Amino acid sequence: MIPVLSELTALISSFPGIGQKSATRIAFYLLRQPRQYIHHLVKTIEDFRENVGFCSQCGVLKNNDRECSLCSASRDQTMICVVEQPSDAFMIENSGDYHGLYHVLMGSLSPLDGIGPEDIRLAQLKKRAAQNQALQEIIIATNPSIEGNATAGYIAEDLKEISRVQISRIAMGLAIGSQIEFADSKIISQSIKNRTPIT
Amino acid sequence: MIPVLSELTALISSFPGIGQKSATRIAFYLLRQPRQYIHHLVKTIEDFRENVGFCSQCGVLKNNDRECSLCSASRDQTMICVVEQPSDAFMIENSGDYHGLYHVLMGSLSPLDGIGPEDIRLAQLKKRAAQNQALQEIIIATNPSIEGNATAGYIAEDLKEISRVQISRIAMGLAIGSQIEFADSKIISQSIKNRTPIT
Repeated sequence: MIPVLSELTALISSFPGIGQKSATRIAFYLLRQPRQYIHHLVKTIEDFRENVGFCSQCGVLKNNDRECSLCSASRDQTMICVVEQPSDAFMIENSGDYHGLYHVLMGSLSPLDGIGPEDIRLAQLKKRAAQNQALQEIIIATNPSIEGNATAGYIAEDLKEISRVQISRIAMGLAIGSQIEFADSKIISQSIKNRTPIT
Repeated sequence: MIPVLSELTALISSFPGIGQKSATRIAFYLLRQPRQYIHHLVKTIEDFRENVGFCSQCGVLKNNDRECSLCSASRDQTMICVVEQPSDAFMIENSGDYHGLYHVLMGSLSPLDGIGPEDIRLAQLKKRAAQNQALQEIIIATNPSIEGNATAGYIAEDLKEISRVQISRIAMGLAIGSQIEFADSKIISQSIKNRTPIT
């Protein structure tokens, strides 16, 4: 009935996790906002898309006109955390406990989808690992999924030759804070298999 | 770590139904879109906010430079459907079975929040009902909530004097397509109380 409303809800419902109804709700919300808010929103979207890109070294987001803060000399050069996506690095950074370097693969190995080692940023990781003389550990934080685990195994094998570097995998098991009673049986059996000594 | 990303996710997470994590996901989605998409999105938001407003008669959305299609002579002038919000009229219109007029109250009576009859578009409804000689029925489609029901009762009382007009309320009971087994006990008892004869 109002073409621009249909167009706007179609655009918003193309966002990840947003359906038709949520999109309509958001459109009505935008209509109730003052003009300055809309102006600020639109400016921020444009500014973000224009001025933010991926760091050619670590692959995480950076301001196009600045040095990457995650690759700076102030970061702990002894460890590299390997993740699938820039957003994963972002989540780890937000957790506040990791102060080392990052390396984004931009995907994971998935032979069924035709994604092989040359399709993810693996050669760059190997090069960085070889060149960084301070490096002591590579923490593989790919997703705890079939593809993520296979990718972790492949990387461990591939980097084995750089013997001074310890390769580790983020801890996986029962979600911290969850209850065994409600956990998936596969997760429980994996957690028992992967048990760690406490004494 | 990137101010414009924080700003964008803060803005997106102010949208109804969107949390911090979904907002981050949407921001990363926008970063992967081509520049033309961003340009189109931004244009559509601005166009929507600039050129769409509320019809001074029915209160539903209309293009500022056009007549309201929901108030046009082609609509069934014998009925007015009363709703709380423009989005409610939109949902009813999308269902495709109603072809009459609309009247948006822009809220519902809520004495606890200090919203009385003069704070919603009730006087306008009364005036429209009195002036429209073709009018036969007013369907009250306020929400099936405490406030919505109270508002419906108030309107019915208020418009009683226009005796040629039948006042009705949308059907309420078990959600159509739902299962009694999983329904709320209050809804079940209301549905039994509101039962309708079938023979």
